Amino acid sequence: MHAEDMAEEFPVVGLNSDAWEAARLLAEHRLPGLVVTDPDGHPHSILPASQVVRFLVPSYVQDDPSLAGVLDESMADRVADKLGGKTVRDVIPHEAPELAVVNFDDTIVEVAAIMARLRCPLAAVIKDRQLVGVITASRLLQLALVHH
Amino acid sequence: MHAEDMAEEFPVVGLNSDAWEAARLLAEHRLPGLVVTDPDGHPHSILPASQVVRFLVPSYVQDDPSLAGVLDESMADRVADKLGGKTVRDVIPHEAPELAVVNFDDTIVEVAAIMARLRCPLAAVIKDRQLVGVITASRLLQLALVHH
Repeated sequence: MHAEDMAEEFPVVGLNSDAWEAARLLAEHRLPGLVVTDPDGHPHSILPASQVVRFLVPSYVQDDPSLAGVLDESMADRVADKLGGKTVRDVIPHEAPELAVVNFDDTIVEVAAIMARLRCPLAAVIKDRQLVGVITASRLLQLALVHH
Repeated sequence: MHAEDMAEEFPVVGLNSDAWEAARLLAEHRLPGLVVTDPDGHPHSILPASQVVRFLVPSYVQDDPSLAGVLDESMADRVADKLGGKTVRDVIPHEAPELAVVNFDDTIVEVAAIMARLRCPLAAVIKDRQLVGVITASRLLQLALVHH
């Protein structure tokens, strides 16, 4: 089996996509992260949900965490304001985790080796430099255990 | 809304649980990681699926990645051998990501703040020092966006 056959569809956003739309995708699909592509459609990085969660926190709480407990829930309504007008590029962490990228004809061992080395929870599968799908670490385990 | 109300059930393994069972849980529930508890039931750390994937890779490939491509799929059958007799404690990375731990009565802002600070994709919710559930980053976004 090759990477191409292990890959699944996965929500993808562009570097220039709307950050609010990215947050909505993460929430709707209950994903720990999204694959981000550059304007040419090549895999670029991962946008972790834990990074977007940062925008739920008002700046004055980031400055003084003791204020978090006294806020009421209505502040959640302000998320859209904080993300509004921002692109995915604006919210990606500078030290974004390196995205594992594998070729469509890589074997399960090759995919596992690069994913483990980069400690990356998913691998982008490319063919002719274009993203053709994503393999998550749990998908890899599923395939390996089924074979057993 | 308090952390207790946001929390969901989530597969949990003990430090002394069987590593093979942990791999099976990750695969079956298609999870990016599991919450690990210590023998007293307190949240301890996270076992990332990308760490378990390491055990799909034979040692001689770790030593020489160029060998990965020439292996056939049958090696996947050896995963059980590599994980057999190992506990979760044996396979957790030494530099395991710090697990976010929140109190049952923390607010959504408090949970978001600690999750963002630790860059942790999930938070263990405790009440009387016992784990009562887990809040993932995407769950938090879902709650915040629904409120909008």
